[in-house]
Amino acid sequence: MPTDEALTLINAFEVPTGKLDESILNWEQGRNFLQKQPGYISTALHQSITDDARFRLINIAKWESVETFTAAIKKMHAEPGSSKVEGLLPNPALYTVIRRD
Amino acid sequence: MPTDEALTLINAFEVPTGKLDESILNWEQGRNFLQKQPGYISTALHQSITDDARFRLINIAKWESVETFTAAIKKMHAEPGSSKVEGLLPNPALYTVIRRD
Repeated sequence: MPTDEALTLINAFEVPTGKLDESILNWEQGRNFLQKQPGYISTALHQSITDDARFRLINIAKWESVETFTAAIKKMHAEPGSSKVEGLLPNPALYTVIRRD
Repeated sequence: MPTDEALTLINAFEVPTGKLDESILNWEQGRNFLQKQPGYISTALHQSITDDARFRLINIAKWESVETFTAAIKKMHAEPGSSKVEGLLPNPALYTVIRRD
């Protein structure tokens, strides 16, 4: 599937004060797992340029299909020892582009 | 400035039930104005593939600088007759990529 027609995962994170570095490390652990799974295409973690943004971190990733993404997330959650950051609130959902300019 | 080093505006919209089409029209009006302003590079409006996502619409746009983006938004808000969608809640902020794979 061409990248332009791929699904986009957008995950906007509400990061508790003082937990930015820990949250990035936590995200990297997830990325290390997910980038090896079938259907993964690419990812880009965005950080807000000011510290008062509601979402300090937003991940934008490409996946080939709903099925491969869902399977990868399920597999990740079944892994033992995955760490959590207290108070870190993710908002993941899958998107397609409806307007482009 | 190369696109890769450009700023990314990410605007996650909470869209009231039944207001999706109206919100897209409203976004198009804003885009029509902003795409003519100095510093604008590109934009892509994303819609969630399921209707239960917290953010039904997320806009991801490239701008050359904080200054051009801020000036464009200020100019847009000063325009007479810009419409609003009742209950539509935007969450705009500027981002840079800190991890890419």
